[in-house]
This record gives sequence, C-alpha cells and structure tokens, in this order.
Amino acid sequence: MALLEGRVSLAHGNGGRFMRELIEEVFAKSFGGALDTGLDAAPMLRDADGSEWVITTDGFTVEPLEFPGGDIGSLSVHGTVNDLAVSGATPRFITVNAFIEEGFEIATLRRITASIGRAATDAGVSVIAGDTKVVRRGQGGGLYLATTGVGRRDKDVSLGLGRIKSGDRIIVSGTIGDHGTAVLLAREQFGLSGKLESDAASVLPVTTRLLQNPGLRFMRDPTRGGLATVAQEIAVATSLTVRLFERSIPVRPEVRGICDILGFDPMYLASEGRVVAVIAQETADDAIAALRSAGYVDANVAGQIEDGRSRVIMETRIGGERLLPELEDDPLPRIC
Amino acid sequence: MALLEGRVSLAHGNGGRFMRELIEEVFAKSFGGALDTGLDAAPMLRDADGSEWVITTDGFTVEPLEFPGGDIGSLSVHGTVNDLAVSGATPRFITVNAFIEEGFEIATLRRITASIGRAATDAGVSVIAGDTKVVRRGQGGGLYLATTGVGRRDKDVSLGLGRIKSGDRIIVSGTIGDHGTAVLLAREQFGLSGKLESDAASVLPVTTRLLQNPGLRFMRDPTRGGLATVAQEIAVATSLTVRLFERSIPVRPEVRGICDILGFDPMYLASEGRVVAVIAQETADDAIAALRSAGYVDANVAGQIEDGRSRVIMETRIGGERLLPELEDDPLPRIC
Repeated sequence: MALLEGRVSLAHGNGGRFMRELIEEVFAKSFGGALDTGLDAAPMLRDADGSEWVITTDGFTVEPLEFPGGDIGSLSVHGTVNDLAVSGATPRFITVNAFIEEGFEIATLRRITASIGRAATDAGVSVIAGDTKVVRRGQGGGLYLATTGVGRRDKDVSLGLGRIKSGDRIIVSGTIGDHGTAVLLAREQFGLSGKLESDAASVLPVTTRLLQNPGLRFMRDPTRGGLATVAQEIAVATSLTVRLFERSIPVRPEVRGICDILGFDPMYLASEGRVVAVIAQETADDAIAALRSAGYVDANVAGQIEDGRSRVIMETRIGGERLLPELEDDPLPRIC
Repeated sequence: MALLEGRVSLAHGNGGRFMRELIEEVFAKSFGGALDTGLDAAPMLRDADGSEWVITTDGFTVEPLEFPGGDIGSLSVHGTVNDLAVSGATPRFITVNAFIEEGFEIATLRRITASIGRAATDAGVSVIAGDTKVVRRGQGGGLYLATTGVGRRDKDVSLGLGRIKSGDRIIVSGTIGDHGTAVLLAREQFGLSGKLESDAASVLPVTTRLLQNPGLRFMRDPTRGGLATVAQEIAVATSLTVRLFERSIPVRPEVRGICDILGFDPMYLASEGRVVAVIAQETADDAIAALRSAGYVDANVAGQIEDGRSRVIMETRIGGERLLPELEDDPLPRIC
C-alpha cells in the first residue's frame, strides 16, 4: 500500500484518506480487533439498568496554542466532551496528559490549565487523573495535550452509521469552518486579520436536544476534515450517496472570504463546537426548529441521503453539481 | 514560588520536587479538587457488588524509542497496566494516543504498534479507543504516546499511603534501575555498551500475589525518580521516616558499574517492571517467599518505616547513614 510505505506525512494527520488508512492498517490491525475505528466513543461497561459507559480519547496540537475563542486547554476538553456527546452519552470524567516542551512559559501553562478547569466545570465533567511529561527543547511544539473521556449513555439511545437510510436529512447545528479559519488567522502568517472567533464549545446543549428527536440516526462533530469528511464517512459506511446543498450550509461571510483568498474549501475546515446529525426526513424540520428556538439560529438542513453509489455530491449555489473527494492533501495542518 | 516562575525545565518532568509542585500547583489547582495527585489510579465508578472501576493515564517519551527489552509501545502498555495493578485493580481496557512526527518511518511505527498489541494481549487488556496526531517535522521527538487504562478493583482491596504504619517493611520485587540504565546504554552517547535489558514488563503477576498477603498496605511502581522517589513520597505522606538498606536492595552489577562511571545513583533510576510494596512486619517474609517461589528471585526487603520525622535514610553498605534527598535535578531525562 503506497500510502503506508516510507514515512509519515502531515497528510496522515488531516482526517482524510491517508489518516484513515494509517489508523486502520497500522494501528487497528495491531490491536487485535477490539478497536472500532468508526466510533466516536467505544462501549466499555454496562450498568445493571442497561445504560452503557463509553470511552473516547483524543490528542490535541494547535498552533497557536491560544487563539480567539479558546486555547488548546479548552479545545481538549471540548473535543473529548463532544466525542462523548455525539455518541449520545453524558460526559462524566476526563483525564489529561500534557507533553510540555522545555522552556515553555509557566504563565501560559497556568492560563491553559485554568482554561481546562473552566471548560470541564462548564461541561459537567471532573478531571480525575492526569500526567505530565517534559520533552526537550525543540521536540515539542510548546504543548500537546491528550485527553480521555468517559460518559454514560442511556440504554434507549441507539445511534450509528448503520441506522442511516436513504431519504434521511443531514443537518448542521451552526456555521461551519469557524474554528479552522480563526486559527488560521491567529497564525498571522498570511498577513490577514479579522474578528472571527473559533466556535470551540461543548455541543452538549445541541446533542441533548437532538436526542429528544425520535428520528435521530447519527451524530458527529465535524472536526479534522470538516463537514465534507463526515459526509464522506457516511457515504462510505452506508454505500449511499450524500447530497449536500451549498446554499443551505451556513458559512460566515468572513470564513467564505478568507477561504476564497487562500484557496481553501470551508467544507473541509474544522469546527469544534458544531454537530452534524442525520435525522429521518419526517422529523428533520422539528430538529431544526428545536435548535433554532434554543438559540442555535444558524442550524439548517445541509443535505440528504440518496440512493446511488457511495459518493458525496455538492449541489452548488448556482445550481451545478460537483463531487467532493475524500481529503488527501492537507488544507490546513494542525488546527484541531 | 520560585520553582513555578519563568519557564518549564527538564527537572519539571523528572518525578521529583519540581514535577510535584508543577502538578500540584499548576494542574491540580486548576482542576477544581477532583484530582488526587497521590493516586496511581483514580476511582471512577462503583459496581452493584461494591467493586470499583479505576482509571489512570500516562504520557510516554523515551529516547531511543526502541531499546533492549522493549520499546515505547510496550512501555506505554506496561506503564498503564502497572499503574492499575499497583492500585490493586485488574486492568481491562486501554486507550492509546499517538503524536507522530512528520517524517517518522512507517516501518518503525508498525513495529511499535505491533508491540502495543502484543503487550496488551499479554496483560489481558483490550485497546478500545485511540487517536493519532501528526506534528510537524522538528516538533515531535519521533513519537509520543499517551495511554489511559481502566481496571476493576475488588471491594475488599484497601490500599493506600494512609494505611502505612511504623514498623512496616518496604519490599522490592526485583532489581532496580534496569530500565533507566538500559535506555541510557541504548543511547550510545557515553561510549558505553552492555547486554543489559530493560525490566519493562507487566507487574500483574507480582501484584496478584501480593494482594493475597493480608498485611499489604500499599504498592507503587518505581518509574520516574526510582525507588528513592517512592520512598520520599511515603515519608511525606506518612510523616514517618523511611529507612532503606543498601545491602539488601537488589541492583545488578552492570547497573551499579554504569552508575559508578556516570555518577548516577541507582536509587533514582527508573524501573518499569518492578513493584515497591509496603507490608506489615509480620507478613513481609511471607510476601518475599511467595514472590521468590514464583520466580521473582531477587525480591527482597528494601527497608522499613520508623518513627521519626518525614525523611528517607539510606543505611549504606559499609554501615553508615545518608539522607536521600527529594530529586531536584534530572539524573537521566526522558527514560520513562
């Protein structure tokens, strides 16, 4: 397999095909079948009442470590909380690993750990275990975090890619690509600036509302690789066609403008506080109405599932169609 | 606090005083009290039968990534399994985070993930969740791993620093400092070589036997900071004196020789497959006999707990006494 010979490239970390193959072929195969790479959170234990305890883990690298709307600390909590939330669970416990580069400013570290604490409190999770390692100067990128979260899922929650059917609607809970774009601007490497903030936040208020919708099939947070990558995953898992409607996918004008300038596609940019959900056609409007009335005013139908072969079609704003390919090259490294 | 101003140094990662203050003052204080820094594994859930599910997390950086007797992959599994084991739990689940540096050889990654898989199988744990991040060339040290483990502890297991009493014996399950010394040799930076292998291994066979001893008070694996650091922790937590007997602490001649040449003290060097346990005086000999008959032929009494102020005294081979201070400077960075 050509993708898996030689050396690891940045594309192996972007959420797209290289990463999928790396994880499936190198990691999952070595781990003897217990690892299901299609899950946001893995079932671990079952309570006597039938509810399940699920676990998820995530690594975090972001440059810069602090950006408008968040920092690597809050991001690490939100990312883990959100993986549990979109699996239908209520997050309860979290563990934090820090790889700190020699020479890192302790004042910055204090701000980031305080941010972890606040984000955990806000999401209702307790940080119950942690570890720190200090790595040599020049071998660390400042600070990397790895968080693991444990949450509880009620026994009547049944979500999964396998439940998706032709005719279902894909909804998004808000504007997409804010996080990716905000981090890009914060790097200041393109001479661009703006007031855009990352959308990084707990999605628990969204998932809690969506879980009340009887037509809910599947939820995911569109982080690395963005909405397009979630759509790809759905298309591959279901062998159905995913049709996205460009005109109804909420994208902030600033995000669109910056993408136009730099040649990025917002469909592939990370959000860190949004939910992509698949919902039965009959109840999709109810879901949108519920989210909008709760303040998620940009929530909208983004697409639908159709019969046809496994692919993602974008119906463009001007009425044309284009295929959205699986991400291969990296549009924006290290933004989540 | 002077240790916590300015910038993070390698000493903040060595298991000693700087690290303890960093973790207590910067991390634990930010996390709102749910984090108990004195535990190897934190209680999370309780089953109807009274048994407890505990969780632990660890970051792993080692240079070189592959060394005689193991690699960062097996090390990460053993480290996490061992933290659960010394807390009295049976390890069940593990999650793995990998931070991979751009340019890392995929063949090496395959060897290391295979090693993770083998170590997990051997220890009876399932790898049920994982994540990978690719970091830019020059920002990664090759590969860092962060593992989180979940295990189950029977309700009748009651271990802890708080149970230690004056008169108790400290035992070690085998030779100390093998891992630290083997990694040091593997770096080849001192022009030394040898056949020494790391002791990195699951300590479950040891902890299972010790848990059958009714006088067992406390167990820990002497990783970062070595036996001396575990002894320090006991002295601080109990406000008692820990007396170690140099002549009865098993140290391989190669380890002693290399330490003599390089000016290290084996008491501070990491082991990755040993247990330090505190056991009531009356049953300590039984514990040693049980371990030796199970093949842990170097198991021995290493010291005892005495009345007196909080300190660690080493009774030297030639009959003198010296205080073992808390580790401040780094004797051997990045060996565990």
